[in-house]
Amino acid sequence: MPTPYEKLIARSREIALISSTGSVIGWDQETYLPAKGVAYRAEQLSYLAGHAHKLGTAPEIGDWLLACETEQSGWPDEDERRGNIREWRRDYDRATKTPPDLVTEMARVSALAREAWTEARKKSDFPTFLPWLEKIIALSKRQADCWGWEKTPYNALLNAYEPGSNAADLKVLFADLRQTLVALLPAAQQKTQKINPAKLHGHYPVEAQQRFNHKVATAMGFDFDAGRIDTTTHPFCSGMGPSDCRLTTRYDETDFTSSLFGIMHEAGHGLYEQGLRDEAYGTPLGESVSLGIHESQSRLWENQVGRSRIFWEHWYPLAREVFSHLKYVTLDEFWMIINRVEPTFIRTESDEVTYNLHIILRFEMEQALIEGTLKPVDVPGAWNTRFKELFGLDVPSDTSGCLQDIHWSMGGFGYFPTYTLGNLNAAQLYRTALAKNKGLEAEIANGRYGTLLDWLRQNVHTHGRRYVPKDLMRHATGEPTNAKYFGEYLKAKFTT
Amino acid sequence: MPTPYEKLIARSREIALISSTGSVIGWDQETYLPAKGVAYRAEQLSYLAGHAHKLGTAPEIGDWLLACETEQSGWPDEDERRGNIREWRRDYDRATKTPPDLVTEMARVSALAREAWTEARKKSDFPTFLPWLEKIIALSKRQADCWGWEKTPYNALLNAYEPGSNAADLKVLFADLRQTLVALLPAAQQKTQKINPAKLHGHYPVEAQQRFNHKVATAMGFDFDAGRIDTTTHPFCSGMGPSDCRLTTRYDETDFTSSLFGIMHEAGHGLYEQGLRDEAYGTPLGESVSLGIHESQSRLWENQVGRSRIFWEHWYPLAREVFSHLKYVTLDEFWMIINRVEPTFIRTESDEVTYNLHIILRFEMEQALIEGTLKPVDVPGAWNTRFKELFGLDVPSDTSGCLQDIHWSMGGFGYFPTYTLGNLNAAQLYRTALAKNKGLEAEIANGRYGTLLDWLRQNVHTHGRRYVPKDLMRHATGEPTNAKYFGEYLKAKFTT
Repeated sequence: MPTPYEKLIARSREIALISSTGSVIGWDQETYLPAKGVAYRAEQLSYLAGHAHKLGTAPEIGDWLLACETEQSGWPDEDERRGNIREWRRDYDRATKTPPDLVTEMARVSALAREAWTEARKKSDFPTFLPWLEKIIALSKRQADCWGWEKTPYNALLNAYEPGSNAADLKVLFADLRQTLVALLPAAQQKTQKINPAKLHGHYPVEAQQRFNHKVATAMGFDFDAGRIDTTTHPFCSGMGPSDCRLTTRYDETDFTSSLFGIMHEAGHGLYEQGLRDEAYGTPLGESVSLGIHESQSRLWENQVGRSRIFWEHWYPLAREVFSHLKYVTLDEFWMIINRVEPTFIRTESDEVTYNLHIILRFEMEQALIEGTLKPVDVPGAWNTRFKELFGLDVPSDTSGCLQDIHWSMGGFGYFPTYTLGNLNAAQLYRTALAKNKGLEAEIANGRYGTLLDWLRQNVHTHGRRYVPKDLMRHATGEPTNAKYFGEYLKAKFTT
Repeated sequence: MPTPYEKLIARSREIALISSTGSVIGWDQETYLPAKGVAYRAEQLSYLAGHAHKLGTAPEIGDWLLACETEQSGWPDEDERRGNIREWRRDYDRATKTPPDLVTEMARVSALAREAWTEARKKSDFPTFLPWLEKIIALSKRQADCWGWEKTPYNALLNAYEPGSNAADLKVLFADLRQTLVALLPAAQQKTQKINPAKLHGHYPVEAQQRFNHKVATAMGFDFDAGRIDTTTHPFCSGMGPSDCRLTTRYDETDFTSSLFGIMHEAGHGLYEQGLRDEAYGTPLGESVSLGIHESQSRLWENQVGRSRIFWEHWYPLAREVFSHLKYVTLDEFWMIINRVEPTFIRTESDEVTYNLHIILRFEMEQALIEGTLKPVDVPGAWNTRFKELFGLDVPSDTSGCLQDIHWSMGGFGYFPTYTLGNLNAAQLYRTALAKNKGLEAEIANGRYGTLLDWLRQNVHTHGRRYVPKDLMRHATGEPTNAKYFGEYLKAKFTT
């Protein structure tokens, strides 16, 4: 007779089989699915999601969990068991607290809202999106109420992406960060704007970019026997099995850095997925812990490593062999172009300094929307006012303003802050890795990343969901996420 | 309250959602899956298969079927309902008559047998395969006993691939065919061997082949908005949704005809899949009826059309624009090379005349193995003797003889005859299409296939499993499958 714990393991693995199958056919939809196949693919995906949800909310899970939670301690794998049980409980409570009609309604409304948003963005017409934004906010509040919250319903939403986080802590963290960023901005602009970025524009054939990206990702440690790269409109990384992690990117033939930094970012995510323990696959300890930690891995490789001077000391000569146009650009100029700081209206096109100001704006605004202190109808005005305060720029249209991101249309309130958490965690982890590993910088300057990857594996990847993000950061770096290291990193990079 | 019939429709569609998802991830395994992902993919596939099997063998289906079978007639869609109910019954009985332990054992043994066969073929060592062949035959017999049979257990196996077929009918059909083939062989060789086929060998870049194949498949009517072509070691066609059908091929850069005829063959299968009625998807009337009919579609396009003189009158000038080497080969020479008749040891490399002799040999031998009149240990000797009688050649090794095909190692007894049924059906259908559509040949000579495809759609594709294959052929051509038309086709092609 299997024990309740063994039954939970088996159920968890069964659900992972279904979800990972969903990931494969979801990936296929973005890469190779013929146009007319989209409607049926939606049915296949929704069937798998429904089947997994049914298995994950079955009442027997509650019984098994109770049995595990009240059993005596003293197991040889105590620590691991506790982690799994705690996370199963978290998933089960959240899933069973959402009534089925709310799940269905959220799926239905967000599909329609996404359509309305696409239309509104195209026409730069906020009123087209407004009624859907109102519906989505009402549903998100209902969701928060079902899940339960303290202080603000926004906390319940935040926790869906970043377990253990809360709005009050983020507010302090972000206030600190904003001060640093605003103070740093003029010097950073001055340092990086000495050269016209158009100097980098040339002809970079897709195939050459693919070969170069492959080389860089391989050097980073991405295992191409357990993963691959394909082309999509929107780059992503998807883990779909213990040895199957797929990255995607898109190519701009006038500028190779767009696909390269895309691949370094996605390969950062991919290394995390590939670093999870195979034998724990399908259980919480074999899963990534949060978006804020996931994003720390992508940002660490993309920015901390990929936009550093030492990284390019190794790779620039190799890039020059592949891309003939680079003979017109010195390494100094190249570094300035890829690190150019310049306020822009669009979050996804922004630099390392101003990126987080974009997030702070969204964080403040979505919290106010969920708490009801900002009305949806007032979003464009509030956006533009706050943008002017933070960036000193007048937003020319809602397409370049409050309609630029897809997240709210999908009900993703609480998602944005994880981007900045990722940036802060990345700086904090990288700083610690450098401190703990003498000679690491020299290795990186020589194009070798084994020591760095091993350290990340040991301190982040292998833990899966064993610790909540705050505790994971504490274990890895000695303190929870804070803005200090990211601030120091930017200062060192842009003012010295 | 849904009626029993509506419940069956819903269940049938649910199973199709699962099976089609299995097809997508099966296709992915052959095309893009990273090497290390294979083991987990097997778990995903087996989970989906098990889940579909459980849903398809549930006892309530028996109740619903009984209710449908005893209900009064007079429905507006009577004909369609009867077809669905008859085919559900067929699937349900077959699935529930196989005890679960036999399903598991067959899966286990055939996986191991396939490995042993691979090894045996490599070493040309029949004894390595022998114990597994014995096991597979014993299991196949048990399967036949579970399913039930009349006259010979081989009939039960045949029916798994070709509903309504039986060994006695096939014996008559194949005897007739063999006589025709043997009589025709000398003249066919003489007519087609006047030119050295090496003359066609040149350099045909993969990309140029891909463009040319795409053009031909598009002209045939294959809808690339509902399908695609990828590269695999073993070409196949897989339908995985009402608007998603994927073909694969492989490329030989010394000879473009290998991938082209591969694509014409697979696109023939694909046109059948694309011609099934979308609104019936997931029910028997939306499914292909048998392997013998499926193969008739691939062979019709590959051979009846693709190896005809009129086809190349249109395409050869276009091929010459793409492949510069063809300037050294006249259309006459080209026709002779692609139609060259020459006995060979390997079935898959054989021509239109001798191909069916290969099948006849396998048909006789597998029937004898299942009936116990031939012992597995005697297979190599019996193979070589019969091969000598049919082809006049001494088989040099078991690799070129009884070990060449994978089918038996997978438990596929009864599969081989459907290849020849496909050839006979193709000739019979094409002949009828020509007779019923004046001007069809002229259209084909001009590279237009719309009339032909419409006729196939109307007479074959749209019916799904409404009629058993024999009746489908009767409806489409006025008589059940016979060898006459194929014989006449070959005579006209090779002796005039």
